[in-house]
Amino acid sequence: MIAAPRFDPNSDEPLRINPELTLHWLIEFLRDEVGFRRGFKQVVIGLSGGVDSALTTYLCAKAFGPENVLAVRMPYRTSSSDSLDHAQLVIDDLGIQQRTIEITNAVDGYLAFEPDADGRRRGNVMARTRMIVLFDQSQKLGCIPIGTGNKTERLFGYYTWHADDAPPVNPLGDLFKTQVWELASAIGVPDVIVHKPASADLVVGQTDEDDFGISYRKADRVLAYLLSGYRPEQLVARGFNADEVAIVQRRVNTTHWKRHLPSTAMLSSTAIGEYYLRPVDY
Amino acid sequence: MIAAPRFDPNSDEPLRINPELTLHWLIEFLRDEVGFRRGFKQVVIGLSGGVDSALTTYLCAKAFGPENVLAVRMPYRTSSSDSLDHAQLVIDDLGIQQRTIEITNAVDGYLAFEPDADGRRRGNVMARTRMIVLFDQSQKLGCIPIGTGNKTERLFGYYTWHADDAPPVNPLGDLFKTQVWELASAIGVPDVIVHKPASADLVVGQTDEDDFGISYRKADRVLAYLLSGYRPEQLVARGFNADEVAIVQRRVNTTHWKRHLPSTAMLSSTAIGEYYLRPVDY
Repeated sequence: MIAAPRFDPNSDEPLRINPELTLHWLIEFLRDEVGFRRGFKQVVIGLSGGVDSALTTYLCAKAFGPENVLAVRMPYRTSSSDSLDHAQLVIDDLGIQQRTIEITNAVDGYLAFEPDADGRRRGNVMARTRMIVLFDQSQKLGCIPIGTGNKTERLFGYYTWHADDAPPVNPLGDLFKTQVWELASAIGVPDVIVHKPASADLVVGQTDEDDFGISYRKADRVLAYLLSGYRPEQLVARGFNADEVAIVQRRVNTTHWKRHLPSTAMLSSTAIGEYYLRPVDY
Repeated sequence: MIAAPRFDPNSDEPLRINPELTLHWLIEFLRDEVGFRRGFKQVVIGLSGGVDSALTTYLCAKAFGPENVLAVRMPYRTSSSDSLDHAQLVIDDLGIQQRTIEITNAVDGYLAFEPDADGRRRGNVMARTRMIVLFDQSQKLGCIPIGTGNKTERLFGYYTWHADDAPPVNPLGDLFKTQVWELASAIGVPDVIVHKPASADLVVGQTDEDDFGISYRKADRVLAYLLSGYRPEQLVARGFNADEVAIVQRRVNTTHWKRHLPSTAMLSSTAIGEYYLRPVDY
């Protein structure tokens, strides 16, 4: 559904999608993967107040009905109160189930042993603790957690391993952030959520684009071309900023391990996932 | 390295390995995967007191030197004191680094919201909290966590997703439990660890074999034949107990999703891991 890229650093052409068709496809994907293939009727989503989890929640409400969607808010004591408020807008608009579980005691229960942990380590502990809560709630209620990671984050490795990327079903994983914004507007996510600066809200005041050193809109264009087979020097020759291309390339190259299952020593002709394969694996 | 299975329900033939050669291979695997491919010099292991993590620790001490191995003990308030003592035997024998971090406050910091959680849910929260500690310690020290899951557990789905299976490098993942016992004896893991009943030590008194309804030694033989292409009815026709074959088959069939990355909706010709592939992916 992404058009073949025509070369223009300032054009959104390589990111163009048909929003109506894409939303329809994603809703069908969710019904097929959650209901038909895995046999679940209800889903649980960690609702952060950001655009990715908001779009995912709208998609799930349409796919399964609002009564079958549980949104869980998991604030830490330093989380922005805007995050809670923005999540509430989604909850009220869709009429879904909701629960708020504060992760502060769980996080600090470990971090008390590590008082000098920096923001990055603390953020990873928070993100993974949210995974624990989400998976436990799904086990309690017999439903399935839905992931919210987008393609830009996944390619940048800009997520905590075994946290944001943990849920077994992920509708947005092949959509760049630029496309997530477009779909979110099209499906009716409130403007205040779509238009605020993207932030993991793990460190006060942090924004994704400050962390990257490049805007999502530019990074997504570079990524779209790189993944289509263009080499970095070709992008520079045709007008992209060399530093920005290098930022993107470095992030993608250094994080490939995060998009893989662990490496296992192979000792037999029946190694799992290598020689022992089932129809679904092909 | 596993011989072609000759059909005898009571023979260990399909599980036969050459311990000396296999240990050598695993040590080389660790050096290659951790040092050469990923560029780490030091490793961290969650040392439970059980045979899998003990064998893994011995392998790492031989691969990297004892000064480059950190064993972390992570007891919960209900954990067996034998577990701590058995881990200490390994630490003393190898002369590795060690740290003990109690997970009780972190675990109870969440479970206080869920006082009615059953043993299974509580066990999953504990296992995932241990993952958090292990990954944070590795980030703090600039080293890499090593996994300890064996092939029997992986095929049975007998582990917590995003917990025991989380570390990026796993030396034992293609070895059945029966083979782990044999290698552990060969490398010098203390007898008391090799010969005690296997237990996740998440619920007091629990043993793996009670949970399964079949012994590891029998289950491993059934698995070895099933993965080599025999159908369950063929195993029964040739002398295996039908109920036991059914137990094994059901565990393998119902847990295949746990051995996979999450399902992502595909929308482009550059979907990660499907069309966007790098040399390491082939």
